[in-house]
Amino acid sequence: MIKCSILTIGDEICIGQIVNTNAAWIASHCTEIGCEVVTHSIVGDDGEEIKAELTRLSKNSDYVIITGGLGPTHDDVTKKVLCEYFNDTYIWHEPTLVWLQDFYSRRGRQLTERNKLQAYIPSTCQVLSNERGTAPGMLFKTESTIFVSMPGVPREMMYIMEQHVFPLIEQHFTLQNQTRNMFRTLMTIGVAESDLADMIGDVSEFLNTNSSLAFLPSYSGVRLRIGAHNVSSGKAVEIVDTIERNIRQKVGKFIYGANNISIEKTVAQLLTERGETVSVAESCTGGKIGASLTDLPGSSAYFIGGIMAYSNAIKVQELGVNSEDIEHYGAVSEEVACAMSQGVRSKLQTDYGIAATGIAGPDGGTDEKPVGTVWISLSTPTSTITKRFIFGNDRAANRDRTVGAAFDMLYRYLRSRNDDNSGN
Amino acid sequence: MIKCSILTIGDEICIGQIVNTNAAWIASHCTEIGCEVVTHSIVGDDGEEIKAELTRLSKNSDYVIITGGLGPTHDDVTKKVLCEYFNDTYIWHEPTLVWLQDFYSRRGRQLTERNKLQAYIPSTCQVLSNERGTAPGMLFKTESTIFVSMPGVPREMMYIMEQHVFPLIEQHFTLQNQTRNMFRTLMTIGVAESDLADMIGDVSEFLNTNSSLAFLPSYSGVRLRIGAHNVSSGKAVEIVDTIERNIRQKVGKFIYGANNISIEKTVAQLLTERGETVSVAESCTGGKIGASLTDLPGSSAYFIGGIMAYSNAIKVQELGVNSEDIEHYGAVSEEVACAMSQGVRSKLQTDYGIAATGIAGPDGGTDEKPVGTVWISLSTPTSTITKRFIFGNDRAANRDRTVGAAFDMLYRYLRSRNDDNSGN
Repeated sequence: MIKCSILTIGDEICIGQIVNTNAAWIASHCTEIGCEVVTHSIVGDDGEEIKAELTRLSKNSDYVIITGGLGPTHDDVTKKVLCEYFNDTYIWHEPTLVWLQDFYSRRGRQLTERNKLQAYIPSTCQVLSNERGTAPGMLFKTESTIFVSMPGVPREMMYIMEQHVFPLIEQHFTLQNQTRNMFRTLMTIGVAESDLADMIGDVSEFLNTNSSLAFLPSYSGVRLRIGAHNVSSGKAVEIVDTIERNIRQKVGKFIYGANNISIEKTVAQLLTERGETVSVAESCTGGKIGASLTDLPGSSAYFIGGIMAYSNAIKVQELGVNSEDIEHYGAVSEEVACAMSQGVRSKLQTDYGIAATGIAGPDGGTDEKPVGTVWISLSTPTSTITKRFIFGNDRAANRDRTVGAAFDMLYRYLRSRNDDNSGN
Repeated sequence: MIKCSILTIGDEICIGQIVNTNAAWIASHCTEIGCEVVTHSIVGDDGEEIKAELTRLSKNSDYVIITGGLGPTHDDVTKKVLCEYFNDTYIWHEPTLVWLQDFYSRRGRQLTERNKLQAYIPSTCQVLSNERGTAPGMLFKTESTIFVSMPGVPREMMYIMEQHVFPLIEQHFTLQNQTRNMFRTLMTIGVAESDLADMIGDVSEFLNTNSSLAFLPSYSGVRLRIGAHNVSSGKAVEIVDTIERNIRQKVGKFIYGANNISIEKTVAQLLTERGETVSVAESCTGGKIGASLTDLPGSSAYFIGGIMAYSNAIKVQELGVNSEDIEHYGAVSEEVACAMSQGVRSKLQTDYGIAATGIAGPDGGTDEKPVGTVWISLSTPTSTITKRFIFGNDRAANRDRTVGAAFDMLYRYLRSRNDDNSGN
């Protein structure tokens, strides 16, 4: 079993000024290739604390994967600390110097003395080239542990992991015939965590010390993560397959996909397969549904465009909503949501139109329509489905949940149509 | 000096399935009230590892703040582990039981045996009520350290921190007359990190052991974080003020605000003050600029709506772009961007129109227009400003950078107008 620990260095992470997305990315990719991620930790730009963490983490890890603190300014201390920790001295690393000269000249900028210091590197480390930035990665080996240090800029870190570190770990698995972990995640939608747990029942009946099942709730459904632990590759597949079959028997109708595929991507695939298009009319979400639909490459196959109708005037002018309906029923109403989805579908000539109008908060709620009230409407070639949701008090969460619910509605419709067709 | 450590428990965080936003939130808020955040760490749902971390973190912390592992399913082990760690036994906590009955009856659901277990609580802990969910927080005290355990659901954790934990820490500061940290962040835009560093010069001239300056780059500018450390409240303000004056003298023209105010919020404030409105015409961003504009409460004061013009047909039909221009110059061109911003401004009758059209990637690039090429246009009552940007190969980053650059353009225009007015 290959064990990894992740150490993130930087005051800005330690004091919470930025969220540690790097650690999640590294952890998920190390997990995917079969490693056990033992722990993550975060310390500020403090030499003594960094050294103490290097010692602590190396005791229980084959790899200590470090990000942060390699920038060109005085508060970046990681390289200096590693040099001291490994009793090393600096050398000028020629290939890095050449890379830096090229990097700056291509951008029409001068290589300053400050930037040049990126090529001043501890002599015993293996330099891991970084084609996306100026600070190279560094690899240090001790008898029991490999230490990898990378810049904190996500795309630079990802480049170094993909080009240098993952191939090294894969080789390590093969050469030493190591046991590994394996995970598979089943994605459910439209069911609560505790209801799923009740349907699945006593997990001790199908889990043992080499397997696990976890419930991971989110705004767009509950994920079920099946795990096989510390076994050979073949055995891992067998364990995960058996548990998956068991779970599918019990809650299969709520499962829409596997391995962290999002509901957005699932919907995108269904639309692409069917050659159908969608447009959106967004009030309370202000563009978030469109933004989600276009997050994915290839979205022009199914997404044409939409109308952000934040004000009532635009709902009338651009979507053909009846202004008397707005006056009579309010902008957050079944009638208006319905007219919005029909209006955008007909105006942009798409197969489907999705509309959302709601009170995201924090203000604007009434007794009858509290903050969190959202109407979502789906207009299709044959029908219009409009539903009311009452979420909560949190503006950001209400907007995210609206996006999730809109995709859920479209997904259910597309699935039911697919099921109809396959039945014919 | 009050020291905090943050412990996040959960396999899903450890293996990177979800990003640890809780730790960042807790860290930033603890920092804001003056605590020193010593470290964060993350361990899986493993009793022995959790206990070892509790012991390690408590050695150097007045508060160990724990999230995760309090859900209703078998993989949530935190409560059991804490009960063992503090040699405690369970009791039924009546107020929690009453709360749970009420919580489920309000939702028209039955209180199941599984959900009822949330009221089964270690006898020596202080229960921290959680009005946003079913798992209460728990507080355990030893002679030197306070341990707080909370659910991992962000809004529930935030409620417990705000209602119970921050007031406790504030009291702790007051009663013991503790020294504290203080940070202030100056937000810059339109300047590179290393150029800022060169302009600011040798930091040792104005920093000492009680003060610090950090450079934090992001897609929407470089933040400069000034710190005062381990001093009295009055002294902290004095130190931070002095450093701020020094920095403003050197790079003041790049500073648009302080303390993590976003460029979006700054633009929103300027628009609201001036009583002006904006509309958007989005191609490659597909709604992200509108989504950013409406993230903030009160956005209806300045945001009316917009057109997501993802396909060329919609650019022509909804924004009045000349289809010959699209054929001749391409959809990603100065001419089309310019027509989009003018088109949306005139159609929706706003003071400003913002448009973005680009090649987000991964496909669609040519030699002449590589992936990452984006045209952004700002149409105002008196002029249209259109600029080309060449970002990089990463679709998500290109879309985020486009949003940042669009806000930057609008910000500069609004600022220049404000400066003009104040000069009259």
